[in-house]
Amino acid sequence: MLPFARVAIIGLGLIGSSIARAVRAEMPTVALSGYDADPETRETARAIGLCDDIADTPGAAVLDADLVILCVPVGAMGDAARAIADDLPADAVVSDVGSCKESVAKALAEALPDATIVPAHPVAGTERSGPEAGFATLFHHRWCILTPSEGTDPVAIERVSTFWKRLGATVETMEAAHHDRVLAITSHLPHLIAYTIVGTASDLEEVTASEVIKYSAGGFRDFTRIAASDPTMWRDVFLSNREAVLDMLQRFSEDLSALQRAIRWDKGDELFDLFTRTRAVRRSIVEQGQDDAAENFGRARD
Amino acid sequence: MLPFARVAIIGLGLIGSSIARAVRAEMPTVALSGYDADPETRETARAIGLCDDIADTPGAAVLDADLVILCVPVGAMGDAARAIADDLPADAVVSDVGSCKESVAKALAEALPDATIVPAHPVAGTERSGPEAGFATLFHHRWCILTPSEGTDPVAIERVSTFWKRLGATVETMEAAHHDRVLAITSHLPHLIAYTIVGTASDLEEVTASEVIKYSAGGFRDFTRIAASDPTMWRDVFLSNREAVLDMLQRFSEDLSALQRAIRWDKGDELFDLFTRTRAVRRSIVEQGQDDAAENFGRARD
Ligand SMILES: NC(=O)c1ccc[n+]([C@@H]2O[C@H](COP(=O)([O-])OP(=O)(O)OC[C@H]3O[C@@H](n4cnc5c(N)ncnc54)[C@H](OP(=O)(O)O)[C@@H]3O)[C@@H](O)[C@H]2O)c1
Ligand SMILES: NC(=O)c1ccc[n+]([C@@H]2O[C@H](COP(=O)([O-])OP(=O)(O)OC[C@H]3O[C@@H](n4cnc5c(N)ncnc54)[C@H](OP(=O)(O)O)[C@@H]3O)[C@@H](O)[C@H]2O)c1
Repeated sequence: MLPFARVAIIGLGLIGSSIARAVRAEMPTVALSGYDADPETRETARAIGLCDDIADTPGAAVLDADLVILCVPVGAMGDAARAIADDLPADAVVSDVGSCKESVAKALAEALPDATIVPAHPVAGTERSGPEAGFATLFHHRWCILTPSEGTDPVAIERVSTFWKRLGATVETMEAAHHDRVLAITSHLPHLIAYTIVGTASDLEEVTASEVIKYSAGGFRDFTRIAASDPTMWRDVFLSNREAVLDMLQRFSEDLSALQRAIRWDKGDELFDLFTRTRAVRRSIVEQGQDDAAENFGRARD
Repeated sequence: MLPFARVAIIGLGLIGSSIARAVRAEMPTVALSGYDADPETRETARAIGLCDDIADTPGAAVLDADLVILCVPVGAMGDAARAIADDLPADAVVSDVGSCKESVAKALAEALPDATIVPAHPVAGTERSGPEAGFATLFHHRWCILTPSEGTDPVAIERVSTFWKRLGATVETMEAAHHDRVLAITSHLPHLIAYTIVGTASDLEEVTASEVIKYSAGGFRDFTRIAASDPTMWRDVFLSNREAVLDMLQRFSEDLSALQRAIRWDKGDELFDLFTRTRAVRRSIVEQGQDDAAENFGRARD
């Protein structure tokens, strides 16, 4: 049985358009409607036939939906929710895909006080954005975390869970606050660090930009991929998950200082011990199918 | 014309074995000899036919060579050079592949005061190590940096340069000290940061190891690849290139503090500006063929 029959997607970027493609692939009888604030994106979405209907207002997109998924930057969730408030059917379930959950849950509850809300975060993505960046298999073998607040209708939670499983994801439920701390270390801090080091390298005077680029295969290039991610999305993530990000950053800085001291005082054993410990983490990630075992990210050998 | 006819490789790990394979592929008439301190590695090298001859002592490996390449961890370069000093032919050129050049140049000059030395660093690698990790195309479209000291025989430099071009690399020459600063930012600091964040994540109590692994697709997994690199090699790199690494680390830490303040004081514009600037660097790296354009590192779409 289909968990939902009429799905509306608000925000047709990487994630929204991937959901649309995945729904088409896995649940082809579902009626799909979509809306994006950007007229150009709506045009593209129409041209590539992303949904059955691309509406010109958010209200028109949700009029008939039994599931509405907000796929906009986390800082825009409140606005996007307010924009559908008047037209949202009373029995529709509202969900989102935001990368932070506490702030989004608050924004959605304020904008839609009477709606059934089941927040979700598919832990999957690439560095691209926009409607043409999406693809149907993005969520395959990836986790999708639901963070419903206490008292949410269990049937609604179950339906959203089934929806994500149908798209290929494995579903986990946790509290929004815990989600935000877990993602602060596994996603937000890595992005913050990658942005920083790419900035640091760009600002050096004695090492030219051309040198940084030429010799990037020594490790730097991997950071640039992450640091090419969408600026709006990530600005919103850092501001919305401020406390958890700052806390993880504090721990990271302390550990970095310890390593700095180890280098300064020639403590090779300390370095060696840490570098040995970190190998095991990689092994587990590969074993659990969260990354490719291919060396060098499977980059072409020629 | 072949730049060298009899090449000896000391240290048959990732880089040494890749050179052996590349020589076989590109200059099949070259006589190849090899030696590694580890008897097991020598056994493996013999079993896979890596060289024409795998010697049981470093002296025997270089007896007849016109090029000797030291492919051992940078902290072992002095020892490896001393071990061949007595048997090195007077007209042989000595080179190495160490990731830092000032300390290695010093160690080699002390161990082999009369030899012709042309230090080199192929900026190419993977996170694997050992003789079976190597492959013949590792150096294709990558840079190889030569750092000969003043007064080195230009003919020797030219021959080493030709050697690397034959293996598919593009050759650049610079001063050892400048090399060490360029690589500190493009390779050494990225590795240091990756090791640190993987360590930080492993030490958290409220976020379990299992959660870190499950949700690593949000960005963290990319860091674990780099943090799976060889502990001995990297301990040596950080201790050998201490000053440059500590200096780059200092700049990085300052930039990270600035970002921390921007998050704390809600300065979204500052974040947005940096995140926009960093995208351009990625574009250049891809344009110049130093990385794949494939999104998400071209990870399998299913
Ligand atoms: N990218 C990832 O790796 C990833 C992974 C998991 C979750 N997420 C989350 O998914 C959400 C979307 O990210 P994305 O990567 O898909 O971003 P994206 O490709 O930039 O798409 C976002 C789209 O939403 C539109 N939009 C902005 N405000 C809107 C509003 N009020 N109403 C309707 N449309 C609006 C944007 O239009 P404009 O261009 O005009 O602003 C844009 O077309 C974010 O909350 C993000 O945190 C992202
Ligand atoms: N990996 C990279 O990405 C990369 C890139 C460019 C340059 N480099 C440089 O290349 C060099 C080798 O790195 P690698 O990645 O090939 O390391 P590797 O795979 O660990 O191989 C190094 C080999 O050298 C052997 N060895 C150690 N001391 C020796 C000695 N005194 N005499 C003879 N053999 C000795 C080691 O044996 P044991 O196992 O017994 O110690 C090991 O088999 C390092 O200087 C590194 O900085 C590495």
